[in-house]
Amino acid sequence: MAENKDPFLKADAEAITLAKTLLRDASYAAIAVNEPETGFPLASRVLLATDSDGTPIILVSALASHTRAIERDQRVSLLTGEPGKGDPLAHARMTTRCIAGRVPRDSAAHQALRATFLARHPKARLYIDFPDFSLFRLTPVSADLNGGFGRAYRIDGQSLVDQA
Amino acid sequence: MAENKDPFLKADAEAITLAKTLLRDASYAAIAVNEPETGFPLASRVLLATDSDGTPIILVSALASHTRAIERDQRVSLLTGEPGKGDPLAHARMTTRCIAGRVPRDSAAHQALRATFLARHPKARLYIDFPDFSLFRLTPVSADLNGGFGRAYRIDGQSLVDQA
Repeated sequence: MAENKDPFLKADAEAITLAKTLLRDASYAAIAVNEPETGFPLASRVLLATDSDGTPIILVSALASHTRAIERDQRVSLLTGEPGKGDPLAHARMTTRCIAGRVPRDSAAHQALRATFLARHPKARLYIDFPDFSLFRLTPVSADLNGGFGRAYRIDGQSLVDQA
Repeated sequence: MAENKDPFLKADAEAITLAKTLLRDASYAAIAVNEPETGFPLASRVLLATDSDGTPIILVSALASHTRAIERDQRVSLLTGEPGKGDPLAHARMTTRCIAGRVPRDSAAHQALRATFLARHPKARLYIDFPDFSLFRLTPVSADLNGGFGRAYRIDGQSLVDQA
């Protein structure tokens, strides 16, 4: 056991580049949310796009368990970095802690994010305007990047998005 | 909004068969845990095997964030059902709420589960006996099966494992 040992390497430029790529290149992700009724953490799948600064965007239905959870607790995380062939743990992946914020449908931001989301996911045009669907921006707080066995990095949220 | 509407269909035999398959065929999964220090739900990737009755088994390192979380809060969930080509949301997937229990290394159960895990993941032989690695059984409590748009089922945990 090594409970008090810091298992993270210092995040260098290469690690931050990999982290930004893992967030920007993902077209879907596992999202973890706190389920209010049970206290269980729920992992489910969401489609992902990114705002121009790299902030993740999701489109979710009010009928989905994750959406009802997010409405009550804005703390979520995303797992990105899909395994290819071979050992799934040999592929880089990242857990990004985020604070979720709904994008109001009547806001100027919504128009732009709607277009961004549809550019990545054209089929979402079939349901993006349904009244029970909402876009959420997920502002990164911090991320745990796993670049493979023994290569773990903690990265702050500001390093994951492009500064204005 | 339809917050009070039960979005789940009644789980029939076909849904339960699909649910059991999604749990048994997965060689890896996204696991969601409650991070004790931050209150964030964390999604990360774990290798998966199943006990003879279908109970999921994971092998995790004490250095990993998810393991430190599980030691404090045994409530976890697994996302299984990987997307193939095309729309990721068109593929069936399932969130299974589980209670995690460590398998003591000196128990008879450990010998059998170690063999089961290695049969699925031969490369884990390189580290399964390291002192910081542990096997956990994840006893299913309930599952949310999503068989595609509009086909959502809630399944009780007992239906997911074979009864003795």
